Formats: sequence, structure tokens, C-alpha cells
Amino acid sequence: MRTSPSYTASYRLEVDESVSSIASIIDAVAATGAEVKGMDVADSDRGRITIDLTCDMRDSAHRRNLKARLDQLPGVTTRSVADQTFLDHIGGKIEVAPKVPLRNRDDLSRAYTPGVARVCTAIHDSPQKAHLLTMKANTIAVVSDGTAVLGLGDIGPAAALPVMEGKAVLFKKFGGVDAWPVVLDTKDTEEIIRIVKAIAPAYGGINLEDISAPRCFEIEERLREELDIPVFHDDQHGTAIVVLAALLNALKLVGKSIEDVRIVVSGVGAAGSAIIRLLMAQGARDIVGYGRSGALSGDDTEGMHPSRRWLAEHTNPRHVHGTLKEGLEGADVFIGVSHGDILTGDDVAVMGPDAIVFALANPTPEVDPLEAAKHARIVATGRSDYANQINNVLAFPGLFRGLLDAKVKEITTEVLRVAAVAIASVISDDELGPNYIIPGVFDERVPRAVSRAVRQAVHDLPTIDIPVQEDVAPR
Amino acid sequence: MRTSPSYTASYRLEVDESVSSIASIIDAVAATGAEVKGMDVADSDRGRITIDLTCDMRDSAHRRNLKARLDQLPGVTTRSVADQTFLDHIGGKIEVAPKVPLRNRDDLSRAYTPGVARVCTAIHDSPQKAHLLTMKANTIAVVSDGTAVLGLGDIGPAAALPVMEGKAVLFKKFGGVDAWPVVLDTKDTEEIIRIVKAIAPAYGGINLEDISAPRCFEIEERLREELDIPVFHDDQHGTAIVVLAALLNALKLVGKSIEDVRIVVSGVGAAGSAIIRLLMAQGARDIVGYGRSGALSGDDTEGMHPSRRWLAEHTNPRHVHGTLKEGLEGADVFIGVSHGDILTGDDVAVMGPDAIVFALANPTPEVDPLEAAKHARIVATGRSDYANQINNVLAFPGLFRGLLDAKVKEITTEVLRVAAVAIASVISDDELGPNYIIPGVFDERVPRAVSRAVRQAVHDLPTIDIPVQEDVAPR
Repeated sequence: MRTSPSYTASYRLEVDESVSSIASIIDAVAATGAEVKGMDVADSDRGRITIDLTCDMRDSAHRRNLKARLDQLPGVTTRSVADQTFLDHIGGKIEVAPKVPLRNRDDLSRAYTPGVARVCTAIHDSPQKAHLLTMKANTIAVVSDGTAVLGLGDIGPAAALPVMEGKAVLFKKFGGVDAWPVVLDTKDTEEIIRIVKAIAPAYGGINLEDISAPRCFEIEERLREELDIPVFHDDQHGTAIVVLAALLNALKLVGKSIEDVRIVVSGVGAAGSAIIRLLMAQGARDIVGYGRSGALSGDDTEGMHPSRRWLAEHTNPRHVHGTLKEGLEGADVFIGVSHGDILTGDDVAVMGPDAIVFALANPTPEVDPLEAAKHARIVATGRSDYANQINNVLAFPGLFRGLLDAKVKEITTEVLRVAAVAIASVISDDELGPNYIIPGVFDERVPRAVSRAVRQAVHDLPTIDIPVQEDVAPR
Repeated sequence: MRTSPSYTASYRLEVDESVSSIASIIDAVAATGAEVKGMDVADSDRGRITIDLTCDMRDSAHRRNLKARLDQLPGVTTRSVADQTFLDHIGGKIEVAPKVPLRNRDDLSRAYTPGVARVCTAIHDSPQKAHLLTMKANTIAVVSDGTAVLGLGDIGPAAALPVMEGKAVLFKKFGGVDAWPVVLDTKDTEEIIRIVKAIAPAYGGINLEDISAPRCFEIEERLREELDIPVFHDDQHGTAIVVLAALLNALKLVGKSIEDVRIVVSGVGAAGSAIIRLLMAQGARDIVGYGRSGALSGDDTEGMHPSRRWLAEHTNPRHVHGTLKEGLEGADVFIGVSHGDILTGDDVAVMGPDAIVFALANPTPEVDPLEAAKHARIVATGRSDYANQINNVLAFPGLFRGLLDAKVKEITTEVLRVAAVAIASVISDDELGPNYIIPGVFDERVPRAVSRAVRQAVHDLPTIDIPVQEDVAPR
């Protein structure tokens, strides 16, 4: 396991002002395998200096181990230890910022009483004006019950909150979208639906997040039917968009067509089923999905959840049976959204020529990416420390930017598909290579391309018709 | 009716570049009674200039009237009209701002995956850490169903949203509190309670707002019992705090004691009943409350809602009956939280010497403040265009600032009382006068004094016990 900037610790040390003390600190850090990121002198007083030592480390054991070593050094005293990730979280990661000034009585009389009453009345008379004159114009809810958070599982709403706050930061940074965490202390499908409907007047869109399957399917479907704002489940469709984007570029590189390739998908939960549906929308015809009991097939759908039965009946045209490993033989594409370390390099070796392997389980991929690369032409993972990271952040900010700008009432598969094509198109043919099939998360071209594609794609969809506001005539 | 900065309109005019045209514009504005706030040249082209004329006006009819006059002027063309209050509302009044940087991969790995997983796990292990490591530390929900908004009544959640956004702006500006509008598309008491409980994990406090009586009593009481964060109904307790603050200073000025004065309260809804209870907590003994059917009295409580029955049984020690006007005879203090224009100056004239009149109905006070001032020593209203404005914004930002800082789990009457005393104390004896019994809303001393008083008052209350976070040891 490598050291990581997600585990940056700071040690405040009191040190005798001698060169040997400083050198001994460097040695101690190196001996544990930590990486020094900074050594800043905080204070100097009568032959003792105070140093803030910052290191990238592996984990808590590593941090304690280094502290013990530092404490044993002659002339060095560890005064405190701080963890940058935790420090960054103190007080939360988002705040509410006013967009209007409030310097004096005139400002107050417009932003609040008595002026605000006229705005309220205008919305009461024409409810659609809320999309113009309130936060609804640019705000979405990031809704989770905390039942399927990262790789942590059902940790509940409070513990899920840091993820939703992080998501809000990403929405704002990459899409200019105001996203607000709504973590719910209930797992009841009907109650979640009722609550989201009740809070919806303030929001221009709903992003469902980290809700476990199969409840997530029902919640999404019902909310799509019953609300007149876009509803999106990122774990399904965000992942599907980015997978399709990466696959389009990978196929271009190996000179294969999506209509002709044999695709194996490991994992038919929320992400897997959405990936399969979106690949089919793009023209894929030979997809076999594997769950815990082997290949999904229309031959045996008894007792299946309706969403899974649909998959079984619409995929696997060759009626393949058996295990995942058997199914890989001769396949062109492997997409894993399941569990870590279920395949070896030898399993990948049986795939067809120029194989494409997306091993997306996090933090441990389905197959070691370095092993897979010995046998596959292109390898992608969900991790940031390998090439070709499949990261949802490429999709959701630009997608909602486009949906809010277009004031569209719903999301269609076609919208998801054009978002994927837009992400893929950011990489030019000249740039494209086995280690660069998908743009980086900080590539500013991506949200622009996605939002533009979405705005163009929604021309035929029903949009919110905001009555002309006579008081805010365009100039 | 006067012109108001809450009704500022802008006219974009094309004007022949002659002095007479400009002069004719000024004349036209003056003739309608509007007040010119600005005349800015936006463009000048071949003898025609484009002018943005900004005026304070009375209302929409006034705006249309001026437009018609301008259109009739020779050499002047009105190209568009804009209303500053509406312009300020376009896109909403609040946004979500990241508090952590997101410049590079290292930032991302701390604010989001993979680093965030450690923070989630820490909260899952010790749920109280959410008060330290998430937005819950500084965020409250402003919850409304839109049933009793300003003087507008039941306008629904979407139309109530501009008020709640304005409230969020005030919370941030005056208290540094992150407040988030939660407008609910339901009026069902039980459902509102369920929803607020379900969304509570993200919030460190609940501010109920503009929910009609008597449902607001039940909702507040139940949430106080069932949540472990402070729950506050601003329309009740915010108003009560500021009324008590103003009354303390008014009584000081006239040299009377709250224990001895006769107090008449018109209106026994949400605000009135909270005011009566808080005045009693401060020592008031002779209060008579008047509803639509006259004086509340313990002699006749049949069919009363429990909250009103409590009032009837605990006030009116002299068993007064009859109308409000009869009850004013010899009274020291009148507090109106009811309806406009229900009293005349003559009605005030029958009050005792050095009478105190708080006529708080908005926008039209119970009695014309100028008429009342002929007979009363001190007059206060809810309006910003008279002296002594009773404005809740003096209370809620500092109150929640103190509650969040102290990490207290509940609000008591004693907390409300000390907040009122703190507001009153901001005005020194030297400053105190009949037209200055309550600080202005922009007086920065107020939220500081309130939050400090609250922090001191909650020493005996149960607080949230956050376990020591070994990774964020204090330095």
C-alpha cells in the first residue's frame, strides 16, 4: 500500500536547534516509508524550535508508528498530531452564501420585507416563476439514506453526510450548480419518496446518491413519474455515462465497433444494470451480465426482481451459462462493477485480442491493473493512482448544469447517451492513447462539453414555461 | 403611501440629446411623486442618448403611470422597465459555497474519495462527531409550509421560498449561521413532524417559520421532544424576545416595573401567546389577552385549543371581560400583534399616564403611529419607516449563533429571556430615549450580545458531548 495525500498527517515537534536533530527526523520519516510534504518552522525560542512536519502516509497505524519513532529521538518532543483530512472537515465543507448585498436598509427592504412580498405574490400567481426568482433556478438536492456509501455500505445518514458535502463541492466547482445534502433518517421506500416530493419546491433537480438496490430503482422510477423536475441516480447513470464515454474511446483505439463486440459485465446491481442499458442504447448487442449466481439469462428468470428480469430478458443473445471466468473466453470487453480481486491476469489472458478491461471495484479492482495490463490492450479502474480513472465527477456537474440551463422537466436515456459522447469527444484523435481514453477530472473542457450536449439534446423534451415577468423585462 | 426603496424601478430611455428632454423627464418623475435615485447615461449615439432612470416608487400602478407619462414626452422613448427588487431575486438569493479548496488531486482526495471514507467511518463509530466534522456544526434548517407568510397568508411552499431565502441571508449576515430553506409541500402536522425528523441529521438546529396556528404549536412541541437539537419557532419566540427587549427599555424610561404594570395584548395567536408567556417569565403579572371574541379569561375556556386555554387560565388576574377598547382604560402597555387600524388615537388616550404602545401589525399597525404618539409616551411598530422598529432579526441570528457555539440540545424560556435582556442592554442609559428603545437591525453589537448571553445561559442545559477526535488534536 502506498502513501496517499488523502492521509496527510501533521506533527508539531519541539526540537533542539541542532542539525543532528533535524537530520534524525528526516531519517525517522524515511524509515517508516512516509513522504515528507513540508517542514515548516512555527516558532523559535532559546535554542528550541517548533516544527510542523507534514507527511503523506498510509494509514493510522503508520501515523502512530512514526509518532513513536519521533518520540524516541533525543532532543525531539512530539507536541501534537493532526490529520489534514480531518482538519479539512472541521465545521463541514460547505456554507450558505448570500448572493445579494445587505449593507443597508434599502438592501434589506428588497431582499427581505417589505419588498420580498411582491416576489412571493408573483410566484403565488405564476408558480413556474419560482424557476426564475428563487434558488430553485440553480439548486439541486443530493438525496441519500446512507445505505450504500462508497465501499462502506449501510453507515446511515449522519456518517454519509461528508460524502454528500463533498459531492456538493464538486457540483459547484465543476458545474456551478448549487447542490445541497439531504440525508434521510429513514430507509422506507415510500417515506423517502414522500419526503423528496414534499421538499421538491425548493429544488430544480434531484440527485439520488448511495441508496442501496433494489430500493433505488423504485425510488428513482416513482420520483421521475411524480415530479416535474429531473431525477438522476448518480450511482447508476453517472457511472454508466462515464463507462460508455471511456468505452467509446477505447473501441476507437482498437478499431472495433460497439455493435460487434462481446461485452462481459460483472455486477448487475445499480451501476451494472444502468451500464448495460446505456451500452445497449448506444448500439451494443452482445452483453452478458454476471451476478453472484453466474450469467443472467432469459432462460431462467424465476424469482428475479423486475429490474433484473428485464436485463436477463434483453441481454445474453447467445444464451451463455456458467461462471464469469468461463464467460471471459474470447470476450472483447470486461466491465467490472462488483468486488475486488475476483480475477487474475490468467483470467484476462483468455479474452479476445486487444481486450479492454474496466475493473471499477473500489478501492480494490476486480483484477490487479498491472496484471491485467499484461494481457489486455486497455485497462481502466476507478482509482486515481492508475491511468484511465472512471470517475462520475466527469458526468454529473455538466449534466445538471445543462438540465438547469435548459429548464427541462425530465432526463431521458438519450440525454445520458449524448453526455457520454460529449465526454469521449473531449479527447482528440491525436491525444487518444491506451493510457488516455478518458479525460482527467480537472479537465475544464469536460463540464462545458457535457452541458452543451445536454442543452442541445433536450430540445424535444418538455421544459418549464416561465411566464414573462413584466417587472424584469430584458434590456 | 410613501415611495419606498423596496419598490425601486429602472426605466431605460432613449432621449434626444437636448436639455429640454432631460428637464422634461425630471418634471414627469416629480409630477407622479416618485423619487429619482439615479440617472445614468448608458450609451450615446448620434444625438440620441440612452439613460437608465432609477426611482423609488409606491407600487405597480405608480410604475405604470410614470411609464405612460414618459412615453408621452416628445423626444423620449421608453425601451424597457425593470424592477430592482425582482432583478435582485433572479436566480435566487443564496448559493452553496465550498469551504475547502479543490485545486488539485490532493485536495480532491481529502474532500472526497478516498479520504472522506475515514471521516464517514469516524462518524459511524461516534455519531456525535457529526457536530464537529460536518455541516451540522454550523447549519440550521428554516422550515416552512408556507401557510402564514408575512401578511400574505397561505401562499404555499414555492411562493414562501423568497422569504426563507431572505431569512437565510439574514442568518448569515448577522449571525454567521448557515441557514437553509426547507419549504414543504404538505400541511399535514404529522407529516411535517416526520419530515423534519428525517432530515435532521444534517442540521444543528431547526427554525420553524410562517407555519399557521395552531399547527405550529403542536409541531414545535413535538419536535422539541423528539429531536436532540434546538427547535425554535421564530414567529412566536423571535417576536416575543424583541418585544420583551423593547418593553424592558420602555419601562426603564418611564420608571415603571414590569411586575406592576397593566399590559393589554391584542392577538393571541402564535406571536401573542409567546409574548405573553415570555413577559410572565420576566415577572409580568397583569396581562389581559384579547382575541376576536374579546378578553381571554379563565372564567370561560370551553372549546378552547389547549394552548389558548393555558393562557386564559394563567392571565387576566382581575377577570376583565369585554372589548379591547374597554380593556385599554388605565392600561400601561398595549401590545398589538393582530390587525391593522383597529384603534384610533382616542382609544389610546384612555390609557394610563406614560402609556407604551407597540402596534406591530404589518404593514398597517393597529393604530396610526403618529396618532398614537399624541397620547402615548412611547410608540413602536413593526415598520422600518418609523422609530422603534420591533424586528425579529435582532433575535434569531445571535440566538442560533450562541446555541450552535454551545452545542446545546434544547432551548428553554430562560434562554429566550436572557436574549431579550441582552438586546435591551445594548442601548446604554445615556442613549435611551422615547424614539430609541430598541437597537437598529444593523447594530453589530446586538448579535454579539445575544450570542454571548445565550452561551452563558446554557451552562446548565444538556449539551452534545463530542468524543475527542485523536486525529484532530488541538494544538
